[in-house]
Amino acid sequence: MNQFPSAAETDPVKMGWMVGSPPPPDKLISFQDGGVYQFPKTRWSFCNFRRMGPTTAVSRGLGQASPLLRTELAELDNVEFTPMGATQTITWGQAYDANYTDGVVVLHRGKIVYERYSGVMKPEGQHIAMSVTKSFFGLIGQMLVAEGALDESALVTHYVPELQNSAFADATIRQVLDMRTGLKYSENYADPQAEIWMHARAGGVLPRPPQYAGPQTFYEFLQTVQKEGQHGGNFAYKTVNTDVIGWVIRRVTGLSIGEVVSQRIWSKLGMEQDAYFTVDSAGNEFAGGGLSAGLRDMARFGEMLRNDGTWSGQQIIPPAVINDIRFNGDASAFPVQNFPTLGGWAYRNMWWVSNNAHGAYSARGIHGQAIYIDPKAEMVIARFGSHPVAANTHFDPTSLPAYHAVAQFLLKHR
Amino acid sequence: MNQFPSAAETDPVKMGWMVGSPPPPDKLISFQDGGVYQFPKTRWSFCNFRRMGPTTAVSRGLGQASPLLRTELAELDNVEFTPMGATQTITWGQAYDANYTDGVVVLHRGKIVYERYSGVMKPEGQHIAMSVTKSFFGLIGQMLVAEGALDESALVTHYVPELQNSAFADATIRQVLDMRTGLKYSENYADPQAEIWMHARAGGVLPRPPQYAGPQTFYEFLQTVQKEGQHGGNFAYKTVNTDVIGWVIRRVTGLSIGEVVSQRIWSKLGMEQDAYFTVDSAGNEFAGGGLSAGLRDMARFGEMLRNDGTWSGQQIIPPAVINDIRFNGDASAFPVQNFPTLGGWAYRNMWWVSNNAHGAYSARGIHGQAIYIDPKAEMVIARFGSHPVAANTHFDPTSLPAYHAVAQFLLKHR
Repeated sequence: MNQFPSAAETDPVKMGWMVGSPPPPDKLISFQDGGVYQFPKTRWSFCNFRRMGPTTAVSRGLGQASPLLRTELAELDNVEFTPMGATQTITWGQAYDANYTDGVVVLHRGKIVYERYSGVMKPEGQHIAMSVTKSFFGLIGQMLVAEGALDESALVTHYVPELQNSAFADATIRQVLDMRTGLKYSENYADPQAEIWMHARAGGVLPRPPQYAGPQTFYEFLQTVQKEGQHGGNFAYKTVNTDVIGWVIRRVTGLSIGEVVSQRIWSKLGMEQDAYFTVDSAGNEFAGGGLSAGLRDMARFGEMLRNDGTWSGQQIIPPAVINDIRFNGDASAFPVQNFPTLGGWAYRNMWWVSNNAHGAYSARGIHGQAIYIDPKAEMVIARFGSHPVAANTHFDPTSLPAYHAVAQFLLKHR
Repeated sequence: MNQFPSAAETDPVKMGWMVGSPPPPDKLISFQDGGVYQFPKTRWSFCNFRRMGPTTAVSRGLGQASPLLRTELAELDNVEFTPMGATQTITWGQAYDANYTDGVVVLHRGKIVYERYSGVMKPEGQHIAMSVTKSFFGLIGQMLVAEGALDESALVTHYVPELQNSAFADATIRQVLDMRTGLKYSENYADPQAEIWMHARAGGVLPRPPQYAGPQTFYEFLQTVQKEGQHGGNFAYKTVNTDVIGWVIRRVTGLSIGEVVSQRIWSKLGMEQDAYFTVDSAGNEFAGGGLSAGLRDMARFGEMLRNDGTWSGQQIIPPAVINDIRFNGDASAFPVQNFPTLGGWAYRNMWWVSNNAHGAYSARGIHGQAIYIDPKAEMVIARFGSHPVAANTHFDPTSLPAYHAVAQFLLKHR
């Protein structure tokens, strides 16, 4: 299926990463030498990101966890689907390893119908969500718009004047929330000169060379981003937009990102575990990709959204905010040539909206992390993965049709 | 009372540490410039150690927390005592600020009778316990002795041959557990050449100078420690002993320190929160001082010990292990000239044993962190502090008599 060793061959428990006192040199995973991002070490490090550098907690509070009821449907493993571009079907059970899944939870009408973990991942503990993080900030940004605390037509610099000499000087909040900005910022992971690496080094989430003299924090980096093209055009996926929204949210709320997520979401849903963010040297969280969380807690979050923002009878997110995500994306501004697996999709408030017959929408991370919400099937899938290739085109063919096939199965299972 | 600004003047909330987007330069607390250890920044950083570098979780598991019942006794604030060396009494309430307390919980017969927090400390969140950490490893070491997994008369090198060229080559497990070793290792915080700083730099818990070429991990450092004097003499407080015991525990159990503490303690007591350890570049936890935990969870731990190792009807620690701590310390080997506030005390399995009429014993940290167990008064005090001076002689005079006065009050309160 690909040129990499299989999920079984790269099981991080069998590989013995970081086991021993001390671990032998060939079993060490180091932040400083970049190993933390190298497959198959990633199959361990993505579950242990706090060991790589500074983090801050997203507190669940001290209340009891909300129970997730369970009616397991083992027959999900046999659900068949045809991967994109393939001629033969495979099953949900087979797709699990084909996608280098570290863990997956499927909720149907709020009950766990499927739950599976691999390698070092367990129900307790956190896995890095990477770009799934973005969807939390698009959501919170839209909440602030709905509350009137944030004017979506205002310029970013209305809130963050520090960005006046950057590309964001003439961008509106709405353009940034939907990533319809013209930025000289490459997210091509194959290009060592891509700005995403400068961004990551500034924030301390990539090691810095010995004589590093670049920006010291996320904020310093954001002020250096230059314009390329115009704002308001097509959707262009650039992580830096989320960190700008993070800055705006901090400025508008007066809180840190960890506090905002705790107050608005994490402390409201009976989460089982605290989550955490990687932070830069100024203690500021990486809004573009720094969240690590437990898998069931990600599922709780998705389930709250599926229920129009309610949880245990309490309105956590206004329905209008969720509807804005679901229905106000512009598929005509979605450059499908750049996203060949996402024909017909739109991007709104940092959520990926399928526009399929089920109205599915998703938060997506670059190694297969996902929250996938299928309103029609009353289904939520939370998934963590450590696919060897940082490119959705490598796992979408076996994950998106799999999610839809499970949704169709559950629809029939009523 | 001392030459430092008061607790009120150094309240970290009022000082605004790390608030702002980004925090202004004079409100930043940085690991790299050493600010994390500088009073009054410590009043913030001791509650936020995970923001300073890599950490690993001590999982509480996913069960419900065990409730701590509550019968608050506000009159404790008026309990009077005479500080050591003083002529006038002060009250428990006054001692709270005099000691730069960040939070304190008093349990009487397992119920919370007093609970108070200051500054950035809250019931949720963790405070660094520093040398209170050591008592966890002395306890676990003694558990392994009781289980027969560890021979207290064996040489350390029987378990860790890597220490054969160090001072520990001819030290027994018992000598290390009781810190009766002869080591060239100064813990004089006022001396920049003291080995404690080399130890801390090796483990990455102190910043390293740019051209640092010393040991890269705790393990590398431990192998460099040289002998001075003989083993088996008087108690000599040296943090390095605990990291050696940590290494032995890892070797004997095959687990990481975080896993050992989680499996044997943290997952067994209905803890409210995960705890965490600082880790070195090889991912190994700082046994000598790296634990951060919630205050109530520290109180739960103390209460389990007070109940002869039982919790909710389950035997967590054998009573013989606790009795070994309480009754097998050798007060004649305790050099009271080095501990003028601790006349009559002993040190056993990395616990401080008062030998007072109440049989009190304690885990103690260098800025006033403590778990203080008074069996006769059926009392446990858990306390976190950030006293400006890293020396127990500066706060013992207002803390030890205060603990005893509260114990006497509670005895009368039956």
